[in-house]
Amino acid sequence: MLYDLVLKTRSFRRFKEDESIDMETLRYLVDLARLGGSARNVQPLKYLLVNGAGLKAKIFPHLGWAGYLREWSGPKEGERPAAYIVCLLDTRISNEADCDLGIASQNILLGACEKGIGGCRIASISPGLHDVLELDDHLTLLLLIALGKPAETVSLDEQEPGGGIIYWRDADEMHHVPKRPLQEIIAGEYD
Amino acid sequence: MLYDLVLKTRSFRRFKEDESIDMETLRYLVDLARLGGSARNVQPLKYLLVNGAGLKAKIFPHLGWAGYLREWSGPKEGERPAAYIVCLLDTRISNEADCDLGIASQNILLGACEKGIGGCRIASISPGLHDVLELDDHLTLLLLIALGKPAETVSLDEQEPGGGIIYWRDADEMHHVPKRPLQEIIAGEYD
Repeated sequence: MLYDLVLKTRSFRRFKEDESIDMETLRYLVDLARLGGSARNVQPLKYLLVNGAGLKAKIFPHLGWAGYLREWSGPKEGERPAAYIVCLLDTRISNEADCDLGIASQNILLGACEKGIGGCRIASISPGLHDVLELDDHLTLLLLIALGKPAETVSLDEQEPGGGIIYWRDADEMHHVPKRPLQEIIAGEYD
Repeated sequence: MLYDLVLKTRSFRRFKEDESIDMETLRYLVDLARLGGSARNVQPLKYLLVNGAGLKAKIFPHLGWAGYLREWSGPKEGERPAAYIVCLLDTRISNEADCDLGIASQNILLGACEKGIGGCRIASISPGLHDVLELDDHLTLLLLIALGKPAETVSLDEQEPGGGIIYWRDADEMHHVPKRPLQEIIAGEYD
């Protein structure tokens, strides 16, 4: 059932790096992205699939991880992503991704979760990554999705009244994510 | 399996208007949206749930339907949405929705599909709708999701080589949506 899958599809940032993800699986995930809706059906997104050690090592230093965890600079060796899906905007097609990036990445992460793979959207990317990836000028880097078998546990917590939205790690290294309660995000009901 | 659900989750624009959607179902769908990821976990989206005839009738004239179907001005009476989920940005929290709107709306539409409900994202909204909905000034209208039991069939077609992305209806009123092939949207593989 979708509800359980949505619940399990959390952002994971520490992985079992040695458990590889094959290219066929990455293609399958991008196919899920492809089959999602697209504003005006324009379909301006393109993808790079990366599971090779060489390029993964070059990509990693360009990523910013978990902005709220000031004392953690990202996953250590052995806990880094097993693969990346790089999401690009083809500016020959459109100058904006509209909703498409959220739709596509959600299909990818739900599909990954169904296969026991966790992931994280990373939008904090240093400008140098464009050159590392040798992107053509018409391709704009929007987002990286880091993927791997999770090596951490994530707890979705109901936000405390008056509490914040800052995620945090407890003494057992469990990652906690406060979610606004349903009644707070429903601004009105008209029946 | 998610793949089949993603395939079935198409944009539907004609509905069995008399098959109502109850408020509990709308709340369930917004809960799916709530449980999706959010950039920096900010969670700036708010929602209005509408299944009452009075407000639905006031909303309808403010919506633009299927821009490519020039000769069709939208669903006729009896085929209009049974409900709407109105997606709002709470600008007290953030000035941008980032990926969140795509993530949230995809969770909503996948969850609806699982219940036999079809939907359509509508971003073509006349400015007057802000007043119709009596929105507080800190709420910005981003998107409406029209919902109902589908009264049309949608075919996902592989885009012909050199073909376009314009959706169209055939003589039997079936709606066709050309999708770019997988090999076209994968810009590179690095293993």
